[in-house]
Amino acid sequence: MQQGQNRITQLFNIQYPIIQAGMIWHSGWKLASAVSNCGGLGLIGSASMYPDILRENIQKCKKATDKPFGVNVALLYPNLEEIINIILEEGVKIVFTSAGSPKAYTETLQKEGIKVAHVVSSTKFAMKCEDAGVDAIVAEGFEAGGHNGRDETTTFCLIPNVRKHISKPLIAAGGIALGSQIKAAMILGADGVQIGFSFCCDYRSKCAQ
Amino acid sequence: MQQGQNRITQLFNIQYPIIQAGMIWHSGWKLASAVSNCGGLGLIGSASMYPDILRENIQKCKKATDKPFGVNVALLYPNLEEIINIILEEGVKIVFTSAGSPKAYTETLQKEGIKVAHVVSSTKFAMKCEDAGVDAIVAEGFEAGGHNGRDETTTFCLIPNVRKHISKPLIAAGGIALGSQIKAAMILGADGVQIGFSFCCDYRSKCAQ
Repeated sequence: MQQGQNRITQLFNIQYPIIQAGMIWHSGWKLASAVSNCGGLGLIGSASMYPDILRENIQKCKKATDKPFGVNVALLYPNLEEIINIILEEGVKIVFTSAGSPKAYTETLQKEGIKVAHVVSSTKFAMKCEDAGVDAIVAEGFEAGGHNGRDETTTFCLIPNVRKHISKPLIAAGGIALGSQIKAAMILGADGVQIGFSFCCDYRSKCAQ
Repeated sequence: MQQGQNRITQLFNIQYPIIQAGMIWHSGWKLASAVSNCGGLGLIGSASMYPDILRENIQKCKKATDKPFGVNVALLYPNLEEIINIILEEGVKIVFTSAGSPKAYTETLQKEGIKVAHVVSSTKFAMKCEDAGVDAIVAEGFEAGGHNGRDETTTFCLIPNVRKHISKPLIAAGGIALGSQIKAAMILGADGVQIGFSFCCDYRSKCAQ
């Protein structure tokens, strides 16, 4: 492994182990490409997009960056088959799945050379992700936005427990905004972090200028 | 400052910046003296003790250890004046106050040479502690047991925010059990940690042997 790299930067071929979370209505191609261009991993959040809007966002993102980016797919949304087909047709290389079974699409996507991360809120589901053969696991604490799951615990308690039970690359999410929190998450056992709201604030403040 | 010391170890004259939380029915002289004898700071939790029981616990703790120990006083309990008088009469050197105003007894206790820490669950009350001149502040996250306060946030989010607004020695509490969590709490801005349940488990398991 090259100096300054870890399992997450290597997996996604990015500079920093920082992933921008998919956020409904807030993470289209502009934000995703901006984050990827800065060395993190930008994600297009598909949950607020009709299939044709998602396709447009992917195409614009590809034009806006030559760096890796991904799409977040909440598995409970309608048009799921159509969304997966668009991701395959458009040659997206990284997919984060959430709100459903990690077994549902991991193999289908990986067969096309796509790296798959799945989002969970408990150690039990993290272990299911490992069984499903995902490439990375996002463990999302109580502090995170969105639909996290029925059983929630805080980032501070969740991450060490998930780390204890899984060996796959682990991404911590929930309440992470500061550098000290990124470092703390790594010490608690994460290989990388997923940050939502801070990117959203920054993006909105820039757009408002 | 000597090597291996920090503001908390120096303030309480202890070896490790680890404080055993006062816990109702679980933190009498046996646990407090055991923790102090191991280099942490043991606290007798007065909230489950009638005044004469507290006096007995302090006297037994003094016999069981020549290391510093303290008493936790929840300011909302009855017999408060009597409890404070016992603490003064018995020559206790460290008091942790909680569940009330940090202005109530800080000055009274400090005049007698007692070090005072106060427990809060928000940045707003941490700032009030600083104004009240306490020697240290315990910031207690959502994960902590006991009565934390009306507004709670998680340890992961609370500690960096309190740190940003206060300069006094800061003790993190809530969800801390592992070495990685102690280290993470320090990175988030704490100078020490307060741990409850883990000591309680260990103590109970030892007593059951």
